[in-house]
Amino acid sequence: MKKIEHLGIAVRNLEASNKVFEKLLGVGPYKDEEVASEGVKTSFFKAGPNKIELLQAMDASSPIAKFLEKRGEGLHHVAFAVADLEAEIKRLVKEGFRVLNTTPKKGADNKLVVFLHPKDTNGLLVELCQEAP
Amino acid sequence: MKKIEHLGIAVRNLEASNKVFEKLLGVGPYKDEEVASEGVKTSFFKAGPNKIELLQAMDASSPIAKFLEKRGEGLHHVAFAVADLEAEIKRLVKEGFRVLNTTPKKGADNKLVVFLHPKDTNGLLVELCQEAP
Repeated sequence: MKKIEHLGIAVRNLEASNKVFEKLLGVGPYKDEEVASEGVKTSFFKAGPNKIELLQAMDASSPIAKFLEKRGEGLHHVAFAVADLEAEIKRLVKEGFRVLNTTPKKGADNKLVVFLHPKDTNGLLVELCQEAP
Repeated sequence: MKKIEHLGIAVRNLEASNKVFEKLLGVGPYKDEEVASEGVKTSFFKAGPNKIELLQAMDASSPIAKFLEKRGEGLHHVAFAVADLEAEIKRLVKEGFRVLNTTPKKGADNKLVVFLHPKDTNGLLVELCQEAP
């Protein structure tokens, strides 16, 4: 793993939360983006080499809507940057980790992403991501 | 904020979880440490410029024991590295954030740390830390 690429944080109201994180981090979001496939609106902040992604559900069927209902606001996932996503997934599956999507899918911020099953990583939802070509 | 210094992850069994994160990250922990003031045993892993801290409660009065009881295993806190902890806390209090400890306290990994109230940061427990002199 090269680094923590970003933390994904589930919020109820993106606009209000953008103001909170702007105060916290001392900088505003550098990007807003809708990811229709996941049913989310997102915003991204920089913290040195790392990013914070805020996620608001666009409808009740979004994974973020379900997460908020079950656990409330807070950390949703941690994303690690990897150099070679397919090779890394192959390595992790061999180590016994289960993946939620076997084929990398398009995520926010121009990334190809794969999620690991949180039951295999102490309840932490881990995303692996690589810059999309 | 200079970067995400580390993520703190609450686990029930440090030894077993060390093996999981060694497989996940491809490297073993570089340090084990007890923090008596917090009632925790910890281990630290490197992921590029960032770290993962696993935390196991040493007794039932530890904040980690209470967290596990309430929420189960998973992300407990995110720590941001700051250049000047006292100045940063002063800035954040002025912005309306509440701190859980007004005087920086000694954390694991030779850090001075201050926690912000998670109700002010969308349910996320935020730690600010600076290398102890």
